[in-house]
Amino acid sequence: MSKKIIGIGASEGLALAKALVLAETELKITKEKITDEKTELAKVDQAVTDSLLELEKLRLTTQQKLGDEKAAIFEAHKDIANDPEMQNEIKDLIKTEKVNAAYAIHKVTNNYYEMFSQMDDPYFKERSADIKDIANRLIKHVLGLPIIDLSTINEEVIIVADDLTPSQTAQLDKNFVKGFATNIGGRTSHAAIMARSLEIPAVLGLKVVTEKVKNHALIALDGDQGFVEVDLSENEINTFKEAMEASKVTKAELNKFKNRPTETADGTKKLIEGNIGSPNDAEAVIERGGDGVGLFRTEFLYMDNDHFPTEEEQFVAYKKVAQTMEGKVVVIRTLDIGGDKKLSYYEFPHEMNPFLGYRAIRFTLAEKGIFRDQIRALLRASAFGKIAIMFPMIATVDEFKAAKEFVELCKKELDNEKIAYDKKIEIGMMIEIPAAAVLADKFAEHADFFSIGTNDLVQYSMAADRMSQNVAYLYQPTNPSILRLIKMTIDGGHKHNRWVGMCGEMAGEPQAIPLLLGLGLDAFSMSASSILKARSLMSKINLAQAEKLANQALECETEAEVLKLVDNFIAKLK
Amino acid sequence: MSKKIIGIGASEGLALAKALVLAETELKITKEKITDEKTELAKVDQAVTDSLLELEKLRLTTQQKLGDEKAAIFEAHKDIANDPEMQNEIKDLIKTEKVNAAYAIHKVTNNYYEMFSQMDDPYFKERSADIKDIANRLIKHVLGLPIIDLSTINEEVIIVADDLTPSQTAQLDKNFVKGFATNIGGRTSHAAIMARSLEIPAVLGLKVVTEKVKNHALIALDGDQGFVEVDLSENEINTFKEAMEASKVTKAELNKFKNRPTETADGTKKLIEGNIGSPNDAEAVIERGGDGVGLFRTEFLYMDNDHFPTEEEQFVAYKKVAQTMEGKVVVIRTLDIGGDKKLSYYEFPHEMNPFLGYRAIRFTLAEKGIFRDQIRALLRASAFGKIAIMFPMIATVDEFKAAKEFVELCKKELDNEKIAYDKKIEIGMMIEIPAAAVLADKFAEHADFFSIGTNDLVQYSMAADRMSQNVAYLYQPTNPSILRLIKMTIDGGHKHNRWVGMCGEMAGEPQAIPLLLGLGLDAFSMSASSILKARSLMSKINLAQAEKLANQALECETEAEVLKLVDNFIAKLK
Repeated sequence: MSKKIIGIGASEGLALAKALVLAETELKITKEKITDEKTELAKVDQAVTDSLLELEKLRLTTQQKLGDEKAAIFEAHKDIANDPEMQNEIKDLIKTEKVNAAYAIHKVTNNYYEMFSQMDDPYFKERSADIKDIANRLIKHVLGLPIIDLSTINEEVIIVADDLTPSQTAQLDKNFVKGFATNIGGRTSHAAIMARSLEIPAVLGLKVVTEKVKNHALIALDGDQGFVEVDLSENEINTFKEAMEASKVTKAELNKFKNRPTETADGTKKLIEGNIGSPNDAEAVIERGGDGVGLFRTEFLYMDNDHFPTEEEQFVAYKKVAQTMEGKVVVIRTLDIGGDKKLSYYEFPHEMNPFLGYRAIRFTLAEKGIFRDQIRALLRASAFGKIAIMFPMIATVDEFKAAKEFVELCKKELDNEKIAYDKKIEIGMMIEIPAAAVLADKFAEHADFFSIGTNDLVQYSMAADRMSQNVAYLYQPTNPSILRLIKMTIDGGHKHNRWVGMCGEMAGEPQAIPLLLGLGLDAFSMSASSILKARSLMSKINLAQAEKLANQALECETEAEVLKLVDNFIAKLK
Repeated sequence: MSKKIIGIGASEGLALAKALVLAETELKITKEKITDEKTELAKVDQAVTDSLLELEKLRLTTQQKLGDEKAAIFEAHKDIANDPEMQNEIKDLIKTEKVNAAYAIHKVTNNYYEMFSQMDDPYFKERSADIKDIANRLIKHVLGLPIIDLSTINEEVIIVADDLTPSQTAQLDKNFVKGFATNIGGRTSHAAIMARSLEIPAVLGLKVVTEKVKNHALIALDGDQGFVEVDLSENEINTFKEAMEASKVTKAELNKFKNRPTETADGTKKLIEGNIGSPNDAEAVIERGGDGVGLFRTEFLYMDNDHFPTEEEQFVAYKKVAQTMEGKVVVIRTLDIGGDKKLSYYEFPHEMNPFLGYRAIRFTLAEKGIFRDQIRALLRASAFGKIAIMFPMIATVDEFKAAKEFVELCKKELDNEKIAYDKKIEIGMMIEIPAAAVLADKFAEHADFFSIGTNDLVQYSMAADRMSQNVAYLYQPTNPSILRLIKMTIDGGHKHNRWVGMCGEMAGEPQAIPLLLGLGLDAFSMSASSILKARSLMSKINLAQAEKLANQALECETEAEVLKLVDNFIAKLK
């Protein structure tokens, strides 16, 4: 019987092909005493020059294949390789300690690597892979070692490796590379992001896949469920092939939902929207026939930058999304920085519990100059599409009123300057703090809409940081307590005829959708790849039955009881 | 007109007397190169010996004046002065760097001081004062400087100082020292704890009091409101004297409530209980006529220790409280360690947000050996009084059921061993996590009682760490959202005929009491010093009117609106 190796499904799809195991051995770097300082310094310069040329080539091919946003990864690589501070550190080490160039590069880049890899924030943690990628490139140039070129692969394979660097992933040709499987990495690594863009199935974080898979062996890979299967029998191979066929059929079935309206079996209209992190992501939402953008996170404008973005820079980004979405609503969340999300050009106060600290609206209400640039940019962009403004981390009515009044001030400024904006622009808020959910009926007197952020709402309601391994078991989005908070939010909003959406991960979960429909949710915002599945599922659900389900769930004691109810409910759908 | 200097009221009461400004100049410690190592090493040994003798004397007088618990402070001082590791560090420094003893002591102790003073936890932060106290004692002995003896004061004064060390405070004679005022320190410093035990009015954290007050000047001190007044006119002196008289009358009035039942104006019975942190504190609750102990925090058994306390050690402590309380209920909370409360003998995992992490019941459910010792000790002690067991940080029904089942297991063990315990012992839980408040009706099917912990409940409900200066404004215990969570908890408990108490700071706040009565709270647990005031206030309140007030408050938008309602309500009480 076959053996399954379980990992993290990082890019969806199934694949069956021969394994190409990349046995790239760890670079052996020895510390050597040198006498000829000049030669070593020249090696560093040459390695930088060569690397920059290669990276520019990679950037260009990526841009052609995958667009600006993905190409920006290599722009960032170039910046790092070309960083004068890092180069100086390397050269200083050669001069003061009389060591060889390879060792000096390794030593200096490794410091940066360690720093990033120890960060709690998954975004920064994954950036350590970028640094390693660049460091290895530089070192290989110094040592005259070949850099593996994956673009030359010309037979159907599944790549198996310890890790794939972003630059390796960008070279993959999906006509030949049917999938890839790595020991390390997660859903937010650049390799994972690339894989999804390239639509190559991928399973990461498999820990032992390079040990367990022999080169050229036939293996199966399931990027949906996140596993790799080895030692398959004839029967198992046939079963997997059938699953691949079925998956294709399902995809074709789902594609039919692209242009259908979002509605339940009984014809109740709902909205299914996309969550996006950059203007370019909006296209994927349109491609899947999304009803709008339920959450545009604006943090990337601030984090991938060396200064607070100007009003003009922001205006360009917001306008682009508004135009891409062709009149469909785009809910843009104001800056949610602080907490675990830091900026290189601004020092946040040290806090013992950053998740319970100075972040999001707490920060922008205190830093009015930064807030003003964003609000003005949002208002100006609202003249080019249907933008709605959403404030994150609102805990008290006072905060919401203060933020809304600030928008009114900015509107007056624009009036005086005779600059156009949407006079009917909606101003709403995230419900992600328990106090706000409980008092939703009062907030609804002031806010035009709510959007429930389940990740934070669950985290605060359970008092459990889901990044902490020891309490991750408390991340229970369908616990009856959370469902009750969601109900309070929806009922509170509807009392004043406000629409209530959800933009947390939960909105796209098949097990949550029947419950949320039953609780009365109006808008479901999710990653673009979940939109069609959700619309298909919704079309099979009768609202009255979902309401009955939700009412039963609200009276459960535990999440396990709720999930049992839901599974029964889904099993009965045809 | 007089000038007010505002500080922190650390021990209640008013005082009017001449200032005795302690102009203790900062110790000047110079680094000197020494040649005679032996002499310096001998100085260290002599200083330790002399200090230990003095500290033992202090311990004995403190024990006679204030009892075992306060004397334990000097037992701890002795331990620190006598710590072999610290002595070795000091001696090593003398030997390796050839420096003088005073400098070596300063250098080594200062490292410990810095470490403690930078901790976020107020308990440990304040412990830095203890280290400084001991360091100064050692250094003065080395330098042959006199150690000021405050026990020789023989005229009525208010002491004004930069800081009072615990050892100085212990020497104060309240017949002469009418109050003290310091630049630094807070409510949890040992000096503050001592002042309250000695019943000497004290205002700490005044920042500039040593600059603003002249020696021998007449000053007024208000430990209730937390200020010092200087440059008083004749009129102002008379007004203050009247206030002192009135305060005495109020105290006499309050004392009448010692033996009265706890009830509202209309005769509805309630309970007012004390929060305690160690067995000795129970006496203060009895002295004030408290109806029981609503919260016995067991952390001190673990934190002031070098090992997990054994079942036997715990049994002795719990039994003592049970007996002291003479059959009145004693609610004992199981270990709430982790988060910001660490142990010297156990390493907790590093977490990014310890308040949202591995602590309290999450820890004890995972560490069954530690939990077992505590549960068995509690059960055994329940044979000697009316003990109730309370679990902290319960978020899900699963957790409560697991904890309760564990108690049942321990009961069976005791049955088998034929050891007595209260077969009807009540098992309840803290409501301090929003998810638990929202689902209280379901928890009430399993828990015998609830006790609301407002500090954490507010912190999680608002997603705001109140230790973080930037978001402290969100600590709003009377925000309508929090009142609604309290109402859900009380209604949920009452649905199944469970009693619902509160053991957070809010329960003793005059502005909160009418609201809590109106919401239906059964038991109010507070610091012993608040008991009589609360009972007096309660006796003036009509329950039906409080209910009307609470219903109005539940429909407010902001905490400011609620407080306005409450202030009007209180103003109308006669």
